[in-house]
Amino acid sequence: MAKLLFIFSIFFFSFSSISSQNLHPLDPLTPSEITLVQTIVRKEYSSPSKYNLTFQYVGLDDPEKSSVLKWQYSRSKTLVHPPPRQALVHARFDKQTIEIIVDLSTRSIVSKQVHRGHGFPMFTDEEQTMASELPFSFGPFKDSIIKKRGLNISEVVCSTLSTGWFGEVKRSDRVIKVQCFYLNGTTNLYLRPIEGITMVINLDDMKIADYQDRIRVPVPKAEGTDFQMSEQRPPFGPRLNSVGIVTPGGPGFKVDGHTISWLNWAFHLGFDARVGPIISLASIYDSEKHKYRRVLYRGYVSELFVPYMDPTDEVYFRTFFDCGEDGFGQTAVSLEPLADCPSNAVFMDAYYAGQDGSPVKVSNAFCVFEQHAGNIMWRHTESGLPDQEVREVRADVSLIVRMVATVGNYDYILDWEFKPSGSIKIGVGLTGVLATKGSAYTHVDQIKEDVYGAFLAENTVAIHHDHFLNYYLDLDVDGEANSFVKTNLVTKRVTDHSSPRKSYWTVERETARTELDARIQVALKPSELAVINPNKRTKVGNNIGYRLIPGSAASPLLVNDDYPQIRAAFTNYNVWVTPYNKSEKWAGGKYVSQSRGDDNLAVWTLRNRKIENKDIVLWYTIGFHHVPCQEEFPVMPTLSGGFELRPVNFFERNPVLKVIPAKHVNLFSNCTTTTNP
Amino acid sequence: MAKLLFIFSIFFFSFSSISSQNLHPLDPLTPSEITLVQTIVRKEYSSPSKYNLTFQYVGLDDPEKSSVLKWQYSRSKTLVHPPPRQALVHARFDKQTIEIIVDLSTRSIVSKQVHRGHGFPMFTDEEQTMASELPFSFGPFKDSIIKKRGLNISEVVCSTLSTGWFGEVKRSDRVIKVQCFYLNGTTNLYLRPIEGITMVINLDDMKIADYQDRIRVPVPKAEGTDFQMSEQRPPFGPRLNSVGIVTPGGPGFKVDGHTISWLNWAFHLGFDARVGPIISLASIYDSEKHKYRRVLYRGYVSELFVPYMDPTDEVYFRTFFDCGEDGFGQTAVSLEPLADCPSNAVFMDAYYAGQDGSPVKVSNAFCVFEQHAGNIMWRHTESGLPDQEVREVRADVSLIVRMVATVGNYDYILDWEFKPSGSIKIGVGLTGVLATKGSAYTHVDQIKEDVYGAFLAENTVAIHHDHFLNYYLDLDVDGEANSFVKTNLVTKRVTDHSSPRKSYWTVERETARTELDARIQVALKPSELAVINPNKRTKVGNNIGYRLIPGSAASPLLVNDDYPQIRAAFTNYNVWVTPYNKSEKWAGGKYVSQSRGDDNLAVWTLRNRKIENKDIVLWYTIGFHHVPCQEEFPVMPTLSGGFELRPVNFFERNPVLKVIPAKHVNLFSNCTTTTNP
Repeated sequence: MAKLLFIFSIFFFSFSSISSQNLHPLDPLTPSEITLVQTIVRKEYSSPSKYNLTFQYVGLDDPEKSSVLKWQYSRSKTLVHPPPRQALVHARFDKQTIEIIVDLSTRSIVSKQVHRGHGFPMFTDEEQTMASELPFSFGPFKDSIIKKRGLNISEVVCSTLSTGWFGEVKRSDRVIKVQCFYLNGTTNLYLRPIEGITMVINLDDMKIADYQDRIRVPVPKAEGTDFQMSEQRPPFGPRLNSVGIVTPGGPGFKVDGHTISWLNWAFHLGFDARVGPIISLASIYDSEKHKYRRVLYRGYVSELFVPYMDPTDEVYFRTFFDCGEDGFGQTAVSLEPLADCPSNAVFMDAYYAGQDGSPVKVSNAFCVFEQHAGNIMWRHTESGLPDQEVREVRADVSLIVRMVATVGNYDYILDWEFKPSGSIKIGVGLTGVLATKGSAYTHVDQIKEDVYGAFLAENTVAIHHDHFLNYYLDLDVDGEANSFVKTNLVTKRVTDHSSPRKSYWTVERETARTELDARIQVALKPSELAVINPNKRTKVGNNIGYRLIPGSAASPLLVNDDYPQIRAAFTNYNVWVTPYNKSEKWAGGKYVSQSRGDDNLAVWTLRNRKIENKDIVLWYTIGFHHVPCQEEFPVMPTLSGGFELRPVNFFERNPVLKVIPAKHVNLFSNCTTTTNP
Repeated sequence: MAKLLFIFSIFFFSFSSISSQNLHPLDPLTPSEITLVQTIVRKEYSSPSKYNLTFQYVGLDDPEKSSVLKWQYSRSKTLVHPPPRQALVHARFDKQTIEIIVDLSTRSIVSKQVHRGHGFPMFTDEEQTMASELPFSFGPFKDSIIKKRGLNISEVVCSTLSTGWFGEVKRSDRVIKVQCFYLNGTTNLYLRPIEGITMVINLDDMKIADYQDRIRVPVPKAEGTDFQMSEQRPPFGPRLNSVGIVTPGGPGFKVDGHTISWLNWAFHLGFDARVGPIISLASIYDSEKHKYRRVLYRGYVSELFVPYMDPTDEVYFRTFFDCGEDGFGQTAVSLEPLADCPSNAVFMDAYYAGQDGSPVKVSNAFCVFEQHAGNIMWRHTESGLPDQEVREVRADVSLIVRMVATVGNYDYILDWEFKPSGSIKIGVGLTGVLATKGSAYTHVDQIKEDVYGAFLAENTVAIHHDHFLNYYLDLDVDGEANSFVKTNLVTKRVTDHSSPRKSYWTVERETARTELDARIQVALKPSELAVINPNKRTKVGNNIGYRLIPGSAASPLLVNDDYPQIRAAFTNYNVWVTPYNKSEKWAGGKYVSQSRGDDNLAVWTLRNRKIENKDIVLWYTIGFHHVPCQEEFPVMPTLSGGFELRPVNFFERNPVLKVIPAKHVNLFSNCTTTTNP
């Protein structure tokens, strides 16, 4: 028993200090690499043009998987060349979308091509800001606000909304819509919409292309909408109890560049402007086999579809694809120590490219922490022995990697949870502010029509909507060659009187041969879903695998031939499996803004490729149907969902049977003080 | 900023020290009350009989709800008489089941009646122990073990299994079956079953009524089955990081007798031999209304059905009702500090009556602790304002009440989680040891038949099974008169070209008028389920309510006319609603051992009583289908499930908008040591 000095400050790590020699092939582009890409691309597109070069997306171009694996698993990193670091750029130049691959070592453009199909790349922050400022120099808008509505225009702010696609045949201009809000006493703009005005902005021209002022509706009151502590009036409460987390041995995990190791886990944490956090090369140490074993080559949110359920003029088009339009990385927000993450968290910064190609820093974009939630890893009390009672219990612990993307009004808490037992739990928390629309009504009893939402406060309807998050999960269970197996639970009737029972259930295993075999709506029939390695078995002969344990799943309620649903057809099933294909990264397609549904997961799988004993990718969609309620006003308590990847016959036996429990921390009195955060 | 002395020891509270004057009407029977019941009942049944008086169940007889409410909500407790404390006894005397109500204040028997129907009361620990020892003095068994199997009988232990009912028409004797196991090198008996022997014990005669030795199957090896740390050999690992939880202000909640108050919550924590933990009178403080508001009058696990899926002679009957047969309270185990519950937990003892009526103590049967899991209560970052970025984040916290029931091989972790936002989350963790059967096979490739389970190790099949936990939830949302409302999400097609959209969904509310309206299989259609108070509305007119948010639900796979399913027909639907009826406490019926399905939730609801604007009870069943895997050998990592009760328009607005964040705890260095637990 020795006194140990422990670290009680908050830990900060920075990704920016890594020199490029030491980069992992999957590391996100560094600020200097982003600048280099900017320089190279700008030089190439330096010809004078009415339409400036803009960087809509800049990210690491996925290196060849085989090269990454070769490098990662070579005994001596110096003997194997890492794959070349290349950047993928989606740019706009001269009203065209250009897809460019830049090689960073040779400082050259490897390929460039103009995208001729439908759909547009992600919006930039800057063009959205410019678009939302245009109305203020537009006469009809000023009339609408000042004259027609009698509002103080200096209290009006506007924001942008993607327009979707609704069957127009003509080739689309790149456009965005703008909606405006009235502050005048609140900072919670989304609860004070100014209804009736529809504006379409041509983004390339940066001009108002269409303007409608259809109806006037009262703006909901400012009172009670602000959620800042400084704006609240008594009574306050409840008052939370102070707690400190003490880890005498440090944070419990190691961060080496972007590689994180903790207990029996090692993985790479990447960042991308479009999808946010990327978990790569997750592997778990098998103490019986004395080696790390591969589980997940790459996992991330590939798309998020948020359709609102209001067919009226001002709302019908709100069918957002938050990753492909706004970018989960580009909308990542700085996490607040002691509130977004506990006191034992380590924070990390992230970088993406702004519209002009310069790096933009997101401080504290990630946090990583050990979660000590007081759960039980495993236990048993055996009272059936003659002379003794046996009790063995192990306390559980998890490692959490967290990022929050705030896409306009909504805050998405993205958690990856690793457990010593081999489980990876993926959690999504929904919080932030509801999208509302103004209404003339002040009481539910006045409403005799469908208002397409929930009535939350006077003049305030929160619109019905869904959230569908699709996760790209390139599982490599002990190697790339995997199969997808459905273990169906099937009722058997006993008809031959061989048993007093009339029925029981048993399992029928079905290996998906091709893509169409693997499309599943999980609620429809009881089955266990697993990715297995058909070439590796446990000693007694079970195929080693990882199960997908769905959380509460939701299926889309739009009709299949509705335009938003055609575009988001990846939500038609909760589960899909495809053969690994470097170009199939985003379930909604590459260019989802104004897309027409010709490039997405549902379309790719129609080729019905073989997926048995192949390098396969599992795509899983979490869904939420959201009928709002008053508790979500003016800011929503987090609503959580998720799913689990859990080893199934991956290990020979319980991998935490021989876990070494933590030492108990004894605390001396008088060793703390409390302060307001 | 002041130095605060904080409490760093583990807190222990005891229920036993409360004098009966100060008892809450819902407090479980105290040891002295149990003794008093014993005295009174023994006196009544003192006539000589071949069959001794045994106490199969002794518990608090639910006092009249109206009396409890009157007492609870009277301003001055001294002016309102508490309802009389009465005990409910299920006894066996002279081969009859007797139901007795004892009044503790008058020390008299209020009523007694012989149960003439089918089914028997709970088993006692003592009779199960006696039954499991009978074989050792039974010649044919000794032959089976020693001569036929060549096993060392001093290493054999037996345990009891309820027999169920399989259509026998003749009136049943009260019986139990016995299965035996071979220790000889392990303490994990369940992984070394001795197959082929079936024994039926007549419990009243305490004699072997039937004995079969049908087949011989190898006993699985002892090697690798023990889960005790002391029995493990290297390599050990992973090693967990030490953590201490410091709460300078104490545990954060108050325990006053059985009443627990924490932040905005207050509730009563009871204990019952049959159902284990009972949460009563849960109410939440509404800071806008300046009062506590009622949410849950009473909630507990009313039954747990565990059918195994093997039709063979030795297994077919295993269709357990763990509450009504073994008792969740009677099988509650002592929780281990720092392992079952974290260092900031408070522990509580519990008492039930043994077979002779004497009180039996379970030390540390409950723990209560604040869970600081690092989650986010709510947050928003607003980047759309002209001159400022607004960020507000609140860290979340929960209060957990935990009990573990170990029913033979299985350990059920029962958690009730209260959240400041008004949610009550109910969690169930499954851990412990799988029920296995011996098998001649040593490798999966040898198996060409259905073995009714998963092959986990040489000679070891873990039998397929289900767990269905039914929760009794007497919600009183702001009063007793409540209704059950289904908010169905319904697709609407736009056919009149009034919108570019072809479809959207909207809600159609349906109030269940009678019991049959409220039977729901939750996976079948998208709807939100809520108990509302039809007489109380928010200011803008929404009905105040609480939602049931199901976790992943499972439905039974046995055919409806199979005997176990007839008995456990409460699993036919995930959701049922009944009018409150004091006598309808247990979803599987009152006497479930060898029951015939004539008294259970499914039968009660056939009366199709009115449930609109009535005092109603919601019954919800969590289901797990369990296909075992090798990771669950020799002890299972916890598998979790649960559901949530969440306010829906119960509050006028977010009830944690004005929560006061905890003060940050600053820790001085050199204030800890670590020790092995």
